[in-house]
Amino acid sequence: MPQIRIALAQVNATVGDLDGNASLIVDWTRRAAEARAQLVVLPEMVLTGYPVEDLALRESFAAASVQRLAGLAGRLDEAGCGEVACYVSYLDRDEVGPRDAVAVLHRGEVVARQFKHHLPNYGVFDERRYFKPGQSLDILRVHGLEVGVVICEDIWQDGGPIAALGRAGVDLVVAPNASPYERSKDDVRLPLVAGRAREARAPLAYVNMVGGQDELVFDGDSIVVGADGTLLSRAPQFVEHLLLLDLDLPGGAARAEGRIGGFEVRRRVLSAEPLPAYAPAYPATIAEPLSDEAEVWSALVTCLRDYVHKNGFRSVVLGLSGGIDSAVCAALAVDALGPDAVYAVSMPSVYSSAHSRSDAADLAQRTGLHYSVQPIETMVAAFVDQLGLTGLAEENVQARCRGVTLMGLSNQHGHLVLATGNKTELAVGYSTIYGDAVGGFAPIKDVPKTLVWELARWRNAEADKRGEIPPIPESSITKPPSAELRPGQLDTDSLPDYTLLDRVVDDYVEGDRGYHDLIASGHDPELVERVLRMIDKAEYKRRQYPPGTKITWKAFGRDRRLPITNAWREGT
Amino acid sequence: MPQIRIALAQVNATVGDLDGNASLIVDWTRRAAEARAQLVVLPEMVLTGYPVEDLALRESFAAASVQRLAGLAGRLDEAGCGEVACYVSYLDRDEVGPRDAVAVLHRGEVVARQFKHHLPNYGVFDERRYFKPGQSLDILRVHGLEVGVVICEDIWQDGGPIAALGRAGVDLVVAPNASPYERSKDDVRLPLVAGRAREARAPLAYVNMVGGQDELVFDGDSIVVGADGTLLSRAPQFVEHLLLLDLDLPGGAARAEGRIGGFEVRRRVLSAEPLPAYAPAYPATIAEPLSDEAEVWSALVTCLRDYVHKNGFRSVVLGLSGGIDSAVCAALAVDALGPDAVYAVSMPSVYSSAHSRSDAADLAQRTGLHYSVQPIETMVAAFVDQLGLTGLAEENVQARCRGVTLMGLSNQHGHLVLATGNKTELAVGYSTIYGDAVGGFAPIKDVPKTLVWELARWRNAEADKRGEIPPIPESSITKPPSAELRPGQLDTDSLPDYTLLDRVVDDYVEGDRGYHDLIASGHDPELVERVLRMIDKAEYKRRQYPPGTKITWKAFGRDRRLPITNAWREGT
Repeated sequence: MPQIRIALAQVNATVGDLDGNASLIVDWTRRAAEARAQLVVLPEMVLTGYPVEDLALRESFAAASVQRLAGLAGRLDEAGCGEVACYVSYLDRDEVGPRDAVAVLHRGEVVARQFKHHLPNYGVFDERRYFKPGQSLDILRVHGLEVGVVICEDIWQDGGPIAALGRAGVDLVVAPNASPYERSKDDVRLPLVAGRAREARAPLAYVNMVGGQDELVFDGDSIVVGADGTLLSRAPQFVEHLLLLDLDLPGGAARAEGRIGGFEVRRRVLSAEPLPAYAPAYPATIAEPLSDEAEVWSALVTCLRDYVHKNGFRSVVLGLSGGIDSAVCAALAVDALGPDAVYAVSMPSVYSSAHSRSDAADLAQRTGLHYSVQPIETMVAAFVDQLGLTGLAEENVQARCRGVTLMGLSNQHGHLVLATGNKTELAVGYSTIYGDAVGGFAPIKDVPKTLVWELARWRNAEADKRGEIPPIPESSITKPPSAELRPGQLDTDSLPDYTLLDRVVDDYVEGDRGYHDLIASGHDPELVERVLRMIDKAEYKRRQYPPGTKITWKAFGRDRRLPITNAWREGT
Repeated sequence: MPQIRIALAQVNATVGDLDGNASLIVDWTRRAAEARAQLVVLPEMVLTGYPVEDLALRESFAAASVQRLAGLAGRLDEAGCGEVACYVSYLDRDEVGPRDAVAVLHRGEVVARQFKHHLPNYGVFDERRYFKPGQSLDILRVHGLEVGVVICEDIWQDGGPIAALGRAGVDLVVAPNASPYERSKDDVRLPLVAGRAREARAPLAYVNMVGGQDELVFDGDSIVVGADGTLLSRAPQFVEHLLLLDLDLPGGAARAEGRIGGFEVRRRVLSAEPLPAYAPAYPATIAEPLSDEAEVWSALVTCLRDYVHKNGFRSVVLGLSGGIDSAVCAALAVDALGPDAVYAVSMPSVYSSAHSRSDAADLAQRTGLHYSVQPIETMVAAFVDQLGLTGLAEENVQARCRGVTLMGLSNQHGHLVLATGNKTELAVGYSTIYGDAVGGFAPIKDVPKTLVWELARWRNAEADKRGEIPPIPESSITKPPSAELRPGQLDTDSLPDYTLLDRVVDDYVEGDRGYHDLIASGHDPELVERVLRMIDKAEYKRRQYPPGTKITWKAFGRDRRLPITNAWREGT
């Protein structure tokens, strides 16, 4: 049986950094070559990063991508990786338009090319804005094996190129991906990939990007399945990784050409003959998927770290209220950047409780981050007295003085400000615009309040398991949440119980369910009416909120595009 | 020759306000019926407003749209308009998915239906996210005339349904539109519509929406052209209008059915026989298009007014610095809402010049808006002293104390805050986030600085012509621009000359031209490098900027989608 050693390079590319990404590709391909792999596959758009958004339309950028690809072929050869068939994804542009493409580099040349067929245009994706779809299936014979390529969405659509490859005949399918993390997506991914392998009647090697890009984070989780759908190898999540695997393939797939299933099937030969037999060195290795909490925590840590570093920051500053949201954000920041890069500020007002300060100080002690106290009384009084503010206007000024304080410290010391709001708050507008909403990044923007608590408990338990000090003070987890903007204020004065609230938010925002459907599924009508009004009215605040890691199926932002001016009210 | 009296109802619908829009449709159809029109056409998606964005995907909303349409047919009949063939555009949803549709209502029934074919997915449009394209051309015989329908983008694409209608044979084509205003678009619109009429070999009646919806404003400019492309009638821009026209049509178009040009051509008969001859009462009326400045000013006024009113506000507040940007915003607000709804605040700091206060007061005097002075010294000192801020951090605190002041007044009195930044500032990041950038709406967000000056001069000249007091103090127009955040500061300390700057911004942002292309077209290399760096670095600020009226081909916002985390630098 023909043998082949494949390498899936699950790497962290940076959008727009063509030179950096080219070096990354050389580096990982060299590692694959050193392990004597014959074929290496990198993630979708690894040369440009993903998603490049409107850069895809800029001719100068597309030209640079094509030019860097050609240069990369030579660099790989010079680096001694010329013999490896290296599958590099990049932005192409031909007379039809921009293309989401993969090229095979070998001995200093581009020896094959494949364009993406299915262009997702839903959720966070706008690919029909950017790319023209491919019409051909370009199969390359590598060491006697017929190797087909599909790109990301091509796997997710029924009746696509995979079925055509199955009918045409291939020995192996490789699939570069940039598939953003969502909770439980890994549970869907494996059965999907397994099903497509069966459809292709060949093993399928799926390699995914890792790392954060603005609101998206890629979890890796690269996998190889056999022709029967059996899981052969799986890479760990949220880390760069080279997944090496020796495959014994039957070879001798049927070799049809011409039009199959709407695609033009074309074949090329890179190396016709199978390799002489060699001893396998890389058997199957299957990384255990992370638990739900560990996965979410890793997603948040990875995306925050990459946002900070890829944007040239070395430190962050955040307000520490003693409450659960800022405590979890601080713990995430410490995990992402180390305590020395995290500056936390307690900003008590006249309404702040004693425990808000002591809990903040306790967290600082536990995590070792930089901690300071800046009371805001003088600032608040300056506004309230001069402008004669009362009620909500007075409450909001407190939050805004904290915002101005954090931004002042950011400007003075170069820290990135973190906004500490959660998804539930953002949904119902329970935040002060230009107040607690200020920041360059919002780590828990897509984390519902009830999950914030779960994550805090999970993170503390993990610390316990490892014999470390739990980062989050128990009292921050257990005390009733409060914005502390007026005496004795509690979140429950303005909001329903968070467990009930999160269920409605989830069904309305993620589920996009209408009023009657929500009632039919058992929610209290009065609660639904109240919550939906709050969510609809808060659209304008969400528009000006900083970016933050998407972890759910539908995050606020590109995933959910609603007009601000919108008279539609569910239930009317 | 068969006669027909048509009415184009150029109306201002509100997104999501199904009941309000239904009443609007009844109201304008009644006017058309009173003028004895036999056929009335309303703009694209008039029943739901346009664009509804992700509401198109919500089943409850689509169901409500379909249900309201059925109800509307009955209401029109009850209102005595049952005999008019009323072309109402709405959101449909069938087993294939959501549809951008138009229905013909007559005697209480839906008698015909047409789906949009071409779905724009560029610029501000995401229609392939929302709608499934139509496959058929549904031609209706009305008083013996074969009437075809196309929707908006169907007109803008070559080789589309218009050519097929021409081959199939029609006597008249009606086209509901929601085509957002852009500078000079009206110059393109007429030749385009004329060309399509020739292609259809029939007169074409083009009706466009009017009014503002978040960042988009629709200018109306509805037109009717003859089969030879001659302009027959044209409605005024930026006002609701009923364009009535008596047409004498040759009739007797060829009546092919079946598949033509990829479309299924289907015919129905509403009324087979031509009307008995009657005396025409509505000859051609051709409104003169507005001048470039008048058009831009009207766009800004209309969009601001609609944003304020459609979001339930009755008044606005803005900072008045004595500079040109805030002066133009104040003048726009006064034109949009009347002086009694406009609250302007001068917020001098220790670095404010004497003329900054006197020019602000002068504008208040000229326009009659509400004016007050709130010095920010005390507030600024509270932050600077406690936090030890210097340099840029100190400069920014001044802008932020103004932001907090405006938001405080907004919270206390219910005004909508206007952000007064222009497009050039937004491009190069010459603004303070959470400072002068605060606001619910930014009237001149898409107006380059040089155009701000032009508009000011034009508006003053218009006042002179009408014998009114020019709203903008001459000195606000002529003095060198300054942020006044440190002693003697001028914009030119940090920025190139605005004339040069605007040219580069225009070529890079609207033109999407790369570094080498910019140099080749004559820009100074050092200037290009400097400006491009500023523009690229400011992306994060633009994300958190309030919405504002789009007037150019490419506004910041949905028109230009770039990653924040983006290492690509032109010229490298």
